[in-house]
Amino acid sequence: MVVLGHRLYSMISEVFSHVIDSLHRQGAQPLPAPPRPAPAPVPPRPGRAVPVPVMAAAARLFRGAVRGPSTLVLARALSSAPPGPAGRGGRRAALAAAGALGGLGLALGLWRRQTALAASREDEEDKELRQRFMAPPVSGLRELRRRRRELRSRMELLIMETQAEVCRALAALDPGASFSVDTWERKEGGGGISCVLQDGEVFEKAGVNVSVVSGLLSEEAARQMRSRGKSLKAKDGKLPFCAMGVSSVIHPKNPHVPTMHFNYRYFEIEEADGTKQWWFGGGTDLTPTYLNEEDAVHFHKTLKEACDKHDLKLYPKYKKWCDDYFYIKHRGERRGIGGIFFDDVDSPSKEEVFQFVKSCAKAVVPCYIPIVKKHRHDSFTPEEKLWQQLRRGRYVEFNLVYDRGTKFGLLTPGSRIESILMSLPLTARWEYMHTPPESSKEAEILEVLRNPKDWVH
Amino acid sequence: MVVLGHRLYSMISEVFSHVIDSLHRQGAQPLPAPPRPAPAPVPPRPGRAVPVPVMAAAARLFRGAVRGPSTLVLARALSSAPPGPAGRGGRRAALAAAGALGGLGLALGLWRRQTALAASREDEEDKELRQRFMAPPVSGLRELRRRRRELRSRMELLIMETQAEVCRALAALDPGASFSVDTWERKEGGGGISCVLQDGEVFEKAGVNVSVVSGLLSEEAARQMRSRGKSLKAKDGKLPFCAMGVSSVIHPKNPHVPTMHFNYRYFEIEEADGTKQWWFGGGTDLTPTYLNEEDAVHFHKTLKEACDKHDLKLYPKYKKWCDDYFYIKHRGERRGIGGIFFDDVDSPSKEEVFQFVKSCAKAVVPCYIPIVKKHRHDSFTPEEKLWQQLRRGRYVEFNLVYDRGTKFGLLTPGSRIESILMSLPLTARWEYMHTPPESSKEAEILEVLRNPKDWVH
Repeated sequence: MVVLGHRLYSMISEVFSHVIDSLHRQGAQPLPAPPRPAPAPVPPRPGRAVPVPVMAAAARLFRGAVRGPSTLVLARALSSAPPGPAGRGGRRAALAAAGALGGLGLALGLWRRQTALAASREDEEDKELRQRFMAPPVSGLRELRRRRRELRSRMELLIMETQAEVCRALAALDPGASFSVDTWERKEGGGGISCVLQDGEVFEKAGVNVSVVSGLLSEEAARQMRSRGKSLKAKDGKLPFCAMGVSSVIHPKNPHVPTMHFNYRYFEIEEADGTKQWWFGGGTDLTPTYLNEEDAVHFHKTLKEACDKHDLKLYPKYKKWCDDYFYIKHRGERRGIGGIFFDDVDSPSKEEVFQFVKSCAKAVVPCYIPIVKKHRHDSFTPEEKLWQQLRRGRYVEFNLVYDRGTKFGLLTPGSRIESILMSLPLTARWEYMHTPPESSKEAEILEVLRNPKDWVH
Repeated sequence: MVVLGHRLYSMISEVFSHVIDSLHRQGAQPLPAPPRPAPAPVPPRPGRAVPVPVMAAAARLFRGAVRGPSTLVLARALSSAPPGPAGRGGRRAALAAAGALGGLGLALGLWRRQTALAASREDEEDKELRQRFMAPPVSGLRELRRRRRELRSRMELLIMETQAEVCRALAALDPGASFSVDTWERKEGGGGISCVLQDGEVFEKAGVNVSVVSGLLSEEAARQMRSRGKSLKAKDGKLPFCAMGVSSVIHPKNPHVPTMHFNYRYFEIEEADGTKQWWFGGGTDLTPTYLNEEDAVHFHKTLKEACDKHDLKLYPKYKKWCDDYFYIKHRGERRGIGGIFFDDVDSPSKEEVFQFVKSCAKAVVPCYIPIVKKHRHDSFTPEEKLWQQLRRGRYVEFNLVYDRGTKFGLLTPGSRIESILMSLPLTARWEYMHTPPESSKEAEILEVLRNPKDWVH
């Protein structure tokens, strides 16, 4: 009896641990709760990171199903598409595993009920997330649930939420148009979701991209990434990295509605000795064709409020950084009237920087949407449209000649060029020796681009 | 008597040498004759390189008169504008110098007659050159005459001639439009002549620039200049340099007329130990919106013939270099269907490379003009125009991201941005995820851009 009892106990233990493992691998945990200001670090669970082959295959299937070269319009991306085969396949495998152990007693029956409950909760959560996001996240819902306290996962959820929030706000202003949603996979690791609205009533081209990529980085590409030029010790010239971000450029049709850009990103690079370097970067900035002081003040004030919640020093510092960064040196002028910009930020702490980035990301819609609403029906002349096209030319010049993000993208092997160059306008113009007349509205904006102003104090 | 005779001889000698000097400084020599295949090197004349102050001031005046920020249409630039003040002032000074010596005997009388003859010949030459060129050369006619056997001068005349030849050939095809001619001065040394035709009937934007600049180069800019990355030893981080070239991009309106680019240039850099490094670069290439095999063959055949006169190895080598150079790496396609391209060429000899460059420059008009004539009245659809605009976008991408000439220009302090970026089209377009249908005419050109063909054997 003792022996039998011991054997039964061992069996039940083994089965329990198998089922628990299965559940973990499926990520059958509640939706990530809003992160607390400073969550206790979760100790890593050795042995649980590597999925069993069937799960890995299922995960691949799920990813394949959503990340083939498909283009769906917003309505379709957000409709109740059936869950990917991995969702069902993985659950089926777990249920089969649990089912095979039927009759092992009350304890096991309890686990089965919990499994079924978890599976049903999961279905609802999947549905909710599908409604919340533009497409399933690159890392997969289950993986994000499993690693829900890790900053990487929280950042991925934040960029997914930001993408959806901005796309919805824009789509609401341009009812005839729709976002096309492309999910793409990067051969070297990771992938992304590109949402682009083109040639609408209000927007000429509006793109909101999410990308979550990982792999090995050449030393040259790594150098391009860090603005402070910190040297990174590579093993055999290669550095394992993970980079994720949300990036957007909105080019409206009406020359009285400014172009807006934002980008929030997170990087991790592992050095030869195993040290992990991490940092955040980002910013939101405005590029008007014509100056409207009220809009400029609203835009900067909203950004300042987001920054001030964290540290009063941030807005002035990042406002100046923005003016310095978006400088078209060969023209002696800025791309636009600025906003905030920061890069390579790794202090005071991962959590504090993340909370700051979150505030900035949440400020995008209130910064910009009121300005679009205010001017989208403004009348304009062909001359105003022409000036807009010339300013678009300068936008192209900045992005292709100076922008570090673009350069980094073009250097990264396997990066998705269509997503990187989505930032370019639909149309642009270069006229030889175009100079606006003195005291014109065109000269007025040029003056501000040459000598940036402080819009809020 | 002996003493007096000796003194008279000394005086006459001194006066002769003064007058000869004056004549040299004015450059009162016949127009540069067509250079012989390998002219005997002219020994440097020490002490004659530095003009006397009055001449230097006059030369500045002359330059100032023609190189202020003026915009003239072709007709005006080529009309019989009065010679600059230096032309008259300098001549007057020389005549006064000669006149002050009147009555010094038959020998001196002979010299005066020669001076007067030279001055009148000079007038005619000035007139002829004004008719031959788009504007007075950057280095001044007299200086070019004075240094007529130096390669720098011969190259400057070649680029001036090429500019005028191409502008005239283009203007003849677009009668309603006219070239605006800008002469500009570079604070740091040298200047240029930009000829631009914009928004014509046939040409959307056609620019033909000459620049002749000199000064001090940073080591970074010098690195950008040499394709082979030879290290140059600078004194205090700076390298005295001289760079000149003719550069042109022609963007026609009709999508059945291809864009054409050419550039021929010469560089000299002086190292810390006084060694002079020199090299030539250049090329001519075609960027069609749609493929026309007959045009492609004509274009390449004309270039091949120009190369074959010098060395049968040149065309295949420079054709491949062209395909490699105009590669838009992030798109996996070439900018166009190529032509020839070479850089950093400093062998077999200065004279031989110059003669080769001259043949290439003379081939520009016969390469391209027949193609424009053939297609300028072709009908086209809005879809064909749209495809042209998308290809223009790729042209912008290449020029801003990869082109070494553009990068060098943007890096050179005091360079003239409007002339450098004249290469950009009047209008361009970027559509997210544009992919032409299989077997379409758009797919046909893409195939050739992805896999370059040999057009002549």
